[in-house]
Amino acid sequence: MATELETGLPSVRQLQMLIRDKQEVEIKLMTSDVITGKVQWQDVYCVCLSDLENQSIVIWRHAIAYLKPKT
Amino acid sequence: MATELETGLPSVRQLQMLIRDKQEVEIKLMTSDVITGKVQWQDVYCVCLSDLENQSIVIWRHAIAYLKPKT
Amino acid sequence: MATELETGLPSVRQLQMLIRDKQEVEIKLMTSDVITGKVQWQDVYCVCLSDLENQSIVIWRHAIAYLKPKT
Amino acid sequence: MATELETGLPSVRQLQMLIRDKQEVEIKLMTSDVITGKVQWQDVYCVCLSDLENQSIVIWRHAIAYLKPKT
Amino acid sequence: MATELETGLPSVRQLQMLIRDKQEVEIKLMTSDVITGKVQWQDVYCVCLSDLENQSIVIWRHAIAYLKPKT
Amino acid sequence: MATELETGLPSVRQLQMLIRDKQEVEIKLMTSDVITGKVQWQDVYCVCLSDLENQSIVIWRHAIAYLKPKT
Repeated sequence: MATELETGLPSVRQLQMLIRDKQEVEIKLMTSDVITGKVQWQDVYCVCLSDLENQSIVIWRHAIAYLKPKT
Repeated sequence: MATELETGLPSVRQLQMLIRDKQEVEIKLMTSDVITGKVQWQDVYCVCLSDLENQSIVIWRHAIAYLKPKT
Repeated sequence: MATELETGLPSVRQLQMLIRDKQEVEIKLMTSDVITGKVQWQDVYCVCLSDLENQSIVIWRHAIAYLKPKT
Repeated sequence: MATELETGLPSVRQLQMLIRDKQEVEIKLMTSDVITGKVQWQDVYCVCLSDLENQSIVIWRHAIAYLKPKT
Repeated sequence: MATELETGLPSVRQLQMLIRDKQEVEIKLMTSDVITGKVQWQDVYCVCLSDLENQSIVIWRHAIAYLKPKT
Repeated sequence: MATELETGLPSVRQLQMLIRDKQEVEIKLMTSDVITGKVQWQDVYCVCLSDLENQSIVIWRHAIAYLKPKT
């Protein structure tokens, strides 16, 4: 895996927009946990959310099943 | 993993046809969730569905068990 | 992962034979689902079955636990 | 992943010895299934067992948790 | 996967800061176990925690769902 | 994945020390099984334990969640 994010990819850009817009998201994990928060940053291995109490949660990409905007 | 989609591969072309035809599909995830919707885009990491309420769901490929047209 | 199938590998050839012989197979998934059907095609990412109602199911290789001929 | 087996690796050689000795083995899968049989062949993606009824089962390596000789 | 850690990546740096600050963390695993402790070291394959009894636990990265500071 | 072990990595060295010291370990698998024994060898794909009855168990690295010394 390249260690630089391919910023041209739709999935990478979608995450960048969610960071910029401070959009609340729901991430469903392979463990079936659902984590809600705002995306702080992404790199090739991880996506970092800050939850409602402003706590940072570093999520490994391999553990993510899906992501959707919180409605 | 190459970061460009190999458009010659049957699995990539099948998804491209489902996008073009706005065909409703069912995706079974490794978490055992089933997500129903129309495929909006794909890249090397993700497949994006829009569900019945037109909400976008970004699904990581590693989380997909199978996909079939909704009947 | 190379995006061309290594047709010299036993696992790839076994699948090619199952396609040619229209042999019915059982595929056990990591989700514990069992899918029965005939193999239509394979590429480096997926294996496609057609089930008893002739519906196509695209299965990601990472989701396959094992495959055996249906008896 | 190289598509040729590194025959110098202990794990590859152990499997080759099990094939040669027709040793019965137990393979525990990530699905928690246990499959018992004799190893027929291995390649970079799969390990093939023949079970007690001489049926071939192609197991993907990513689905294997562990392997031990049947006692 | 490169066998040297990319120290420029946010996820790698976050772990390095947690090591330096001896911050207690919670790691949720793909098995749904939660492990609590201080991060001792990281390499490309593993993250090592020392738990409350000062015991070392070597965790494989592929088994990590998420990590957050213990509150 | 390189097929030679990077002996400079902490996780590889830790395993080498456990082999040398014949230290009893506990390995928790992604299946939630716990296997106890002494580490016999490691290669890039597998870690081999010998259990209390001196039986060899070849464990695939992708199936390991964590390892800790048995106390």
